[in-house]
Amino acid sequence: MTTAPLSQLSTPAALVDIARMQANIETMQSRMNALGVNLRPHVKTSKCIDVARRQIAAGARGITVSTLKEAEQFFAAGITDVLYAVGMVPSKLPQAKALRDRGCDLKIIVDSVEAATAVAAFGRAHEHVFEVWLEVDTDGHRAGLAPEGDALIATGRALHEGGMKLGGVMTHAGASYELNTSAALEAMAEQERSRCVRAAERLRAAGLPCANVSVGSTPTALSAQRLDGVTEVRAGVYVFHDLVMVNVGVARMSDVALSVLTTVIGHQKEKGWALVDAGWMAMSRDRGTQKQTHDYGYGQVCDVDGNPVAGYVVDSANQEHGIIARIGEIDADIAARFPVGTMLRILPNHACATAAQFPEYVAVDGATLTAWPRFYGW
Amino acid sequence: MTTAPLSQLSTPAALVDIARMQANIETMQSRMNALGVNLRPHVKTSKCIDVARRQIAAGARGITVSTLKEAEQFFAAGITDVLYAVGMVPSKLPQAKALRDRGCDLKIIVDSVEAATAVAAFGRAHEHVFEVWLEVDTDGHRAGLAPEGDALIATGRALHEGGMKLGGVMTHAGASYELNTSAALEAMAEQERSRCVRAAERLRAAGLPCANVSVGSTPTALSAQRLDGVTEVRAGVYVFHDLVMVNVGVARMSDVALSVLTTVIGHQKEKGWALVDAGWMAMSRDRGTQKQTHDYGYGQVCDVDGNPVAGYVVDSANQEHGIIARIGEIDADIAARFPVGTMLRILPNHACATAAQFPEYVAVDGATLTAWPRFYGW
Repeated sequence: MTTAPLSQLSTPAALVDIARMQANIETMQSRMNALGVNLRPHVKTSKCIDVARRQIAAGARGITVSTLKEAEQFFAAGITDVLYAVGMVPSKLPQAKALRDRGCDLKIIVDSVEAATAVAAFGRAHEHVFEVWLEVDTDGHRAGLAPEGDALIATGRALHEGGMKLGGVMTHAGASYELNTSAALEAMAEQERSRCVRAAERLRAAGLPCANVSVGSTPTALSAQRLDGVTEVRAGVYVFHDLVMVNVGVARMSDVALSVLTTVIGHQKEKGWALVDAGWMAMSRDRGTQKQTHDYGYGQVCDVDGNPVAGYVVDSANQEHGIIARIGEIDADIAARFPVGTMLRILPNHACATAAQFPEYVAVDGATLTAWPRFYGW
Repeated sequence: MTTAPLSQLSTPAALVDIARMQANIETMQSRMNALGVNLRPHVKTSKCIDVARRQIAAGARGITVSTLKEAEQFFAAGITDVLYAVGMVPSKLPQAKALRDRGCDLKIIVDSVEAATAVAAFGRAHEHVFEVWLEVDTDGHRAGLAPEGDALIATGRALHEGGMKLGGVMTHAGASYELNTSAALEAMAEQERSRCVRAAERLRAAGLPCANVSVGSTPTALSAQRLDGVTEVRAGVYVFHDLVMVNVGVARMSDVALSVLTTVIGHQKEKGWALVDAGWMAMSRDRGTQKQTHDYGYGQVCDVDGNPVAGYVVDSANQEHGIIARIGEIDADIAARFPVGTMLRILPNHACATAAQFPEYVAVDGATLTAWPRFYGW
């Protein structure tokens, strides 16, 4: 912990504005409390125990992870209730079992009879009862069993009759990222809810257990009007927010808690370019706003205090060079506006992708700076 | 080092095919030897001392880095001749001086009178003579001084008369990545050469020293027909190659030495999708082939031995999910073709970006697997 100013930091650096992050955490937790469901944050966004602890302190119950490495790392840091939300394959079962043997309450997911059968066979062979949830497809964007299909029941049965604990159903309406009106978002949230609840009801009607009904994405979580039949919501990016979420309409630019601190290293004056030391290695190659209503290039330029400089974005990027330009019109005064050595903050398109480029965050609380390490790799 | 088969690896994993990499190293070094110039590889691609050592063993002289962290890491591993090829800003001068004080022969670059003056002022204040090269713009794609402009001479003079060592000129024709014919590539290589040599000649004519004339990018290095007046070439991605280089036309798919090992985790049969555990966290968000003649999505699918499966690409990606599909026509038999648990290799669009997602490589030499750590962060 230090009270040195930002100007003492080496750039590029990933800054977390603690006040904004805390407000994002409280907004989401309050919504979930009001809707009567648990919140199980997806920690793939931050991959940071300091962030997850704040989510849990605010009321979150357990975490969601995208890799078994994350499960191991967060479990080592003391979090035991973990849902691994990527379809399980046989080759990863020894790693999952080892975690459970050490006391981690790890839940795994499958979305086919084939995978369920493999899990059950491994479990029986090793005298281990895995808790398995079924992934349900509620929006057609990725994985999951159809809520109305025969395979849903057959998969549940393969687990239950195979001696595993069928723990529930889960879904992720990732298609919500493509929407940008309240009406469409509310409709998607209701679709996600109703189809996942329907899957749970069909399992129960078939005589199978289904205690947990888990739904979620940041856009649907922040748009749902009711969550009847749902037991928990998963969401990740809300903790930092980003320009994609601003375009979707579930965050304001002033909610974005993650930014990249960068330094101006040069200019091409006649082109209206300021070159900075945040290229795609720092921002990531994520161009998530490209197809949205407002394209922010590789990120929105802000002054060092975090105030957006309207119209200026990181227009293109090489590995360690970003090119800042004004959208639409060359700024002939760019060198005077952003002299060499000027520090700027860049808001990211996609917080999960940008954060992943950094070994650690610099958490900013007024004038107090603290290094928060991030987990990395598989 | 282990002789376990690939099937024992946890996925996703970044594989380096040592035989292909070694052939890429030898091809480039032979060209440079024939053209009578030194090769200073850019190690931002691999960020791996095991790779750099092989480049040096083949004849490379010194390295190029994109961050001072890389300079520190490679210097700690025993490499002393280092060019930091991103414009220097005053705030990084203490870090650069510390490296030089410890014995690193670090060269830095500037492309403005402003930056040159700042370097000279810092150097004089600390009684330190930095070696500084001038960045020259030969293709308009990014940074650098115009070879014919007054600022070139003024910047050189600010360094030389300011007491610094003016070590040479350097340029990078990154615009070569946008080309895809031999004629255009040869012309760009000649443009890069002639304009950089011209800058050197103008400096010398003005009475300023200019010992080094450094040019390069992988496409121009592999296309140049003559390099008169050039002392060294810098290139990075050639060591692994990637699908962007295949589209540019300076590599064959069978030259690509980096791939991501992944496992099939599920299917959406009616959509012709196979889901794998390599999403954008593994492949990176780089879509460098999107605007090229052949769009490979997030990468070309190969079998576990590295043989391309024609027509199949990673069509879309979430953080830890990749979606494999056949281009143009749904494969109704995708689940039979790639059953759950099948291991595949994915060739990347952009090796620098994909490699950066991994803490280490698995170097593959026949049946022998060796972990090679990568440097990370700033």
